[in-house]
Amino acid sequence: MGLDDVKSAPSTTGPVRVGVDIMGGDHAPDAILKGCVMALDDLPPGDQLVLVGKGRVIRDYLDERGVRFDDPRLEIVDAEQVIDMGESASLGVRRKTDSSIVKMHQMGAKDHPRRCDVVLSAGNTGACVAAATLFMRRLPNVMRPGIAVTVPAFHGPVVLTDAGANPEPKPEHLWQYGLMADVLARRVLNNPNPRVALMNIGSEEAKGTGLIKQTRDLLKATPGLNYIGYIEGRDFFDGAADVVVTDGLVGNTLLKAAEGMAKSLFKAIAAELLEFDPTLVPKFEPVVKRIYAKNDYHEHGGAPLLGINGACFIAHGSSEARTIRAAIRNCRTFVRAGVNEAIIKRIAEVEAHNVPELVRQANGEAADEGVRV
Amino acid sequence: MGLDDVKSAPSTTGPVRVGVDIMGGDHAPDAILKGCVMALDDLPPGDQLVLVGKGRVIRDYLDERGVRFDDPRLEIVDAEQVIDMGESASLGVRRKTDSSIVKMHQMGAKDHPRRCDVVLSAGNTGACVAAATLFMRRLPNVMRPGIAVTVPAFHGPVVLTDAGANPEPKPEHLWQYGLMADVLARRVLNNPNPRVALMNIGSEEAKGTGLIKQTRDLLKATPGLNYIGYIEGRDFFDGAADVVVTDGLVGNTLLKAAEGMAKSLFKAIAAELLEFDPTLVPKFEPVVKRIYAKNDYHEHGGAPLLGINGACFIAHGSSEARTIRAAIRNCRTFVRAGVNEAIIKRIAEVEAHNVPELVRQANGEAADEGVRV
Repeated sequence: MGLDDVKSAPSTTGPVRVGVDIMGGDHAPDAILKGCVMALDDLPPGDQLVLVGKGRVIRDYLDERGVRFDDPRLEIVDAEQVIDMGESASLGVRRKTDSSIVKMHQMGAKDHPRRCDVVLSAGNTGACVAAATLFMRRLPNVMRPGIAVTVPAFHGPVVLTDAGANPEPKPEHLWQYGLMADVLARRVLNNPNPRVALMNIGSEEAKGTGLIKQTRDLLKATPGLNYIGYIEGRDFFDGAADVVVTDGLVGNTLLKAAEGMAKSLFKAIAAELLEFDPTLVPKFEPVVKRIYAKNDYHEHGGAPLLGINGACFIAHGSSEARTIRAAIRNCRTFVRAGVNEAIIKRIAEVEAHNVPELVRQANGEAADEGVRV
Repeated sequence: MGLDDVKSAPSTTGPVRVGVDIMGGDHAPDAILKGCVMALDDLPPGDQLVLVGKGRVIRDYLDERGVRFDDPRLEIVDAEQVIDMGESASLGVRRKTDSSIVKMHQMGAKDHPRRCDVVLSAGNTGACVAAATLFMRRLPNVMRPGIAVTVPAFHGPVVLTDAGANPEPKPEHLWQYGLMADVLARRVLNNPNPRVALMNIGSEEAKGTGLIKQTRDLLKATPGLNYIGYIEGRDFFDGAADVVVTDGLVGNTLLKAAEGMAKSLFKAIAAELLEFDPTLVPKFEPVVKRIYAKNDYHEHGGAPLLGINGACFIAHGSSEARTIRAAIRNCRTFVRAGVNEAIIKRIAEVEAHNVPELVRQANGEAADEGVRV
């Protein structure tokens, strides 16, 4: 398969069933349920929301708001347990078999009789990664799933991967994250030739850790990948790359720091305005709102866990109703865009090239040349 | 030694000689020389600047600006080679023995006849770390030097360490970075009880890498350290901690991403203002300038490489003249505050407690208890 096939891999048609973890997130269950009700307005005919959580809580909420829970677009799946935000992921998934996270990810598996095409949670990220891996399994030849967040940067969207699924990856994991995020950028962001970069402490080839250098070798040797080299933190928001590959600790810290930084900066601006000229505050407010509307993660809710055999979306822990609404929209887009089908083809193509062997040969030859001199 | 001794360790008095690498940085040598000339205005009697670099370039520059280079406050040290920004650090330091970075760090060593009390470079960071370690050596019992950047966050200054000297640290390295940055916050920022935190992907104890968990155990078991636990990226700018410990890759990426993010955000604000109401642009400009003045790294130039036997400051590659001026001021403050003397005492005190052994015992006992259940 060439890159044209990545573009032309069939998109999924037909109705999409979106499973939503009602119990996950700082503002669950109310904000999640409210987001689901809002999302009903966006649902095309045939698409469904599967609400997974404490049945009585869900029914009471819908009842109070006059939403009929025999609405054919809604299905309620009872799950009486909750895996808390701070709970151990592996223990939680093993022990709480009647939790919303476990039951929902079981429904995300290909062979489940009431299968969801995509599942969404704003709950414990580690537990979601563990449950998705355990119950939905991985796509063929994918070693570890990774989270790919689309950041609405000033110059355009940037896909950052991994955003926290795998804080101690191997080079092969990061390499596959790059391959998968490249497919995502092509299929969902309609970028015909994403520039793929690797995060490092400097742009020079000699810099970085063993992990980074080995990942670089793999990305460099991959046919049909527009690998452009290292970028530094300051280039991230500057339109230097379309896909940025890094480990889960760096990716997670970068995203959260940017979020905190933006908040602090707006606070600082507000404080300065108040001190400098209070009459400017109301004038500046609509400008802030417009910037928020463009860049706010609440409007770009949910990030796919790439590499899972099925579709699994993770939303920000502090998701509000509008975050969930946006995330449900993104879930449906992801399924319809045929991302997984394209990833399967792309990974198989790259496997056929045996890139790790190419790298070993290249490095061996380079060493020989060095000796010859 | 107790913590009172950290506070009362003798400050260095007497004149301070500051070595400056004239050839390092994106805007070298002009911006560096200009910054040095500006810094002359701040120099108290007896303090000196030692300008290290291409002698003719330095003399011509001073000559053209009417600065007498027989000024007793100035010394010029010829170094005809330059280690470039992108050059391999270890090769550069080994091969370019007549470079400004090599000659300046040699002058930073305790036994050099024309010793500098502190040296400053905006050049190749890796080469500075390598040259400082090689020629100035480490403080007693310090395993690896680390960069500690003081970030002027909204709620007050935060010391981030390591900012890029050591991208693949061991737990003991990060632990010592925490100890040393704690001393820095006490002595230079006059914080009587800095809250020390460890950067992680979540605040829950179960989260993170092996490196992070082992560092946590060491920090937790250290007597007299106000260790407050994990923080996430979003807490960094929110006043959650006074000292933040992380590996050089995460620290470097976080700082540079924040820098890039702030720039992008101001650009976005300007663009929105222009579109929304162009008359607001000139009104908003002084506000931006005030925020910049408070938060701009150019005004807070230079970060110490902690753990070196002597004082070594690293400035931002894109340092301007005012950055160098501010950095020279910070260099002199660092020496006068007696930071190294306090670090030596603090590390010796902690060594006497044998913290790694305490951690091993604590973990062994915990494991036994687990088995007993």
